[in-house]
Amino acid sequence: MSDKSVRIAIDAMGGDHAPHITVEGTCMMSLESPAELILIGDEPVISAELKKHRHDPERIRIVHTPVAITMEDSPKVALKEKSNASVVLAAKLLSAGEADAMVSAGSTGAVVISAAMHIKRIAGVRRTAIAILYPTLNAQKRNDIFSMMLDIGANVSNQPDDLVHYAYMGSSYKEKVLKVKNPTVALLNIGAESHKGNETMKTAYQLLSACKDLNFIGNIEGNELMSGKADVIVTEGMTGNIAMKTMEGTSEAVKKIGGMAKNGKLIWKLGLLCLSGGIKKLMKVASYEEYGGAPLLGYEKIVIKAHGRSSAYAFKNGIRAAIRAVEDDVIGIMQHSIAHYESEKNPSDK
Amino acid sequence: MSDKSVRIAIDAMGGDHAPHITVEGTCMMSLESPAELILIGDEPVISAELKKHRHDPERIRIVHTPVAITMEDSPKVALKEKSNASVVLAAKLLSAGEADAMVSAGSTGAVVISAAMHIKRIAGVRRTAIAILYPTLNAQKRNDIFSMMLDIGANVSNQPDDLVHYAYMGSSYKEKVLKVKNPTVALLNIGAESHKGNETMKTAYQLLSACKDLNFIGNIEGNELMSGKADVIVTEGMTGNIAMKTMEGTSEAVKKIGGMAKNGKLIWKLGLLCLSGGIKKLMKVASYEEYGGAPLLGYEKIVIKAHGRSSAYAFKNGIRAAIRAVEDDVIGIMQHSIAHYESEKNPSDK
Repeated sequence: MSDKSVRIAIDAMGGDHAPHITVEGTCMMSLESPAELILIGDEPVISAELKKHRHDPERIRIVHTPVAITMEDSPKVALKEKSNASVVLAAKLLSAGEADAMVSAGSTGAVVISAAMHIKRIAGVRRTAIAILYPTLNAQKRNDIFSMMLDIGANVSNQPDDLVHYAYMGSSYKEKVLKVKNPTVALLNIGAESHKGNETMKTAYQLLSACKDLNFIGNIEGNELMSGKADVIVTEGMTGNIAMKTMEGTSEAVKKIGGMAKNGKLIWKLGLLCLSGGIKKLMKVASYEEYGGAPLLGYEKIVIKAHGRSSAYAFKNGIRAAIRAVEDDVIGIMQHSIAHYESEKNPSDK
Repeated sequence: MSDKSVRIAIDAMGGDHAPHITVEGTCMMSLESPAELILIGDEPVISAELKKHRHDPERIRIVHTPVAITMEDSPKVALKEKSNASVVLAAKLLSAGEADAMVSAGSTGAVVISAAMHIKRIAGVRRTAIAILYPTLNAQKRNDIFSMMLDIGANVSNQPDDLVHYAYMGSSYKEKVLKVKNPTVALLNIGAESHKGNETMKTAYQLLSACKDLNFIGNIEGNELMSGKADVIVTEGMTGNIAMKTMEGTSEAVKKIGGMAKNGKLIWKLGLLCLSGGIKKLMKVASYEEYGGAPLLGYEKIVIKAHGRSSAYAFKNGIRAAIRAVEDDVIGIMQHSIAHYESEKNPSDK
């Protein structure tokens, strides 16, 4: 697909710092890629923001709607009453074939529900997934230090086939958008052996082992999530959600414990001062800003959920991830591999 | 119960550094408490170790067995073939009423299976649990900074009643052994609202809310595990195992990232040097050595699984936890509260 035809629907009004950072990020992207960037939201407000930043006006278009969903709204209620909200219009543009991917920094609930209401699932996919990318110790010495875990909360429980689909989705995304060759896939479990875990996990282990086109490396346990030995980690939604939030909370806690030194002795403060350059460098490496957002996978179009507190730079990277995914036809690859898996499973259905 | 009658069965041969640290820890404890400490293992080896450390010979007794289970043994196979292994004899002493509690630094599998084979469960308890104590940010400003989570892997899945039993077990242990008044209890889940999670969690939430003698504070999510807002966290075994290992792996990873500074610029090294006092202090606070071990709960006797890599000091603290639990009749309290819960649930059974 040529760059020129890529059209990205951007929810200009979603997120803690919208529309400032959403418009600014879009402006930045317009100078880097020939893709068409469709800003959806309150036209006068967006136009005023556009004037503040250097951008390529040829590549930016506004679709007006005065309605937005705020972080305070209950997504379910809001989406019933606000069928013209910017995030809903973005999903509608995708379903109408007027855009190829969408990016929103709005609430996860609103993005998930909008997508579920308006965008078709890939054939064979029963349950979509929310994927997260998080920084690791990069055990494989990749250029890309992020692992992807899915599902982290679109579902509570899953069937074994869902986890195989997630493996294909994650692999395609990692390979195409993040340029990782032959990504390793693992199943989050409570032990390395194939007989560990609940029935879903045991069956999923067997199914994944049989998929010769996946680089399945077996089970990994919670303590290996940060190692980076698996590029893609598949898990049921509840387990993924708890693991993801535990990683988040533990990193925060360890940082806080480190930060206690700030209120300590003078020599500790001096130590922190000396270290600050290094800490900043490490923080940058570990920042979610680089990968831009969490993809919702399983739909016929790419949906990127950017962090609610995204900076303009992070939001721009979210748009860039969406453009890459479209350019490299990640959806086509997912459709193909899932169709192939499903047909191998049920040869009689052919 | 007077101190003099407390008898602790100690697996002298279990753990990475047995029998050195197990005997040394026992020697240390013999100088602090009048409890009878029964060292189980190879008599000549234990006697030789005893000679190396100051101890009170009046308070230490040896039960000889030449058989031990090593970390390399498969626990299931080993326990079939080695019915006289030190860890099995410890469990048998408990079931025969010749000891009140046992402590082992052997493999978790061996300890769990020995206990399951020989020690009776508390009436009403269907599934026992492995509990872990881990350091937190101490949101409640307690003297005790550890939270307890259970089950972390004795089971894969659980029924709602199991989780209520775990709440009572954890509360009693926290209150009596760790001296925390009116411990807060939470359910590990994927959201704060009572309707979140799988069917087991939803039902457990309702049951826990109805227990007026528990200080149930509702659901907590993975990112709150390290906060310390809950003294006791109940969860199904699989979820608990993944959360626990994720905490472990994430803390290690963050520490490693911090440690990268060691190989960096001179000024970073200087910074680390200045901070080392503070880091050591923090490490001490966060060390598992202080609480001594993970209790296996649900049995009619106290079983403490000490860390495989325990130091003598940590192992001593494991013995101390066992003594405290016996002195304060933690088992009696658990039996009483679980019997009360079960009878309230089925008034017709009375």
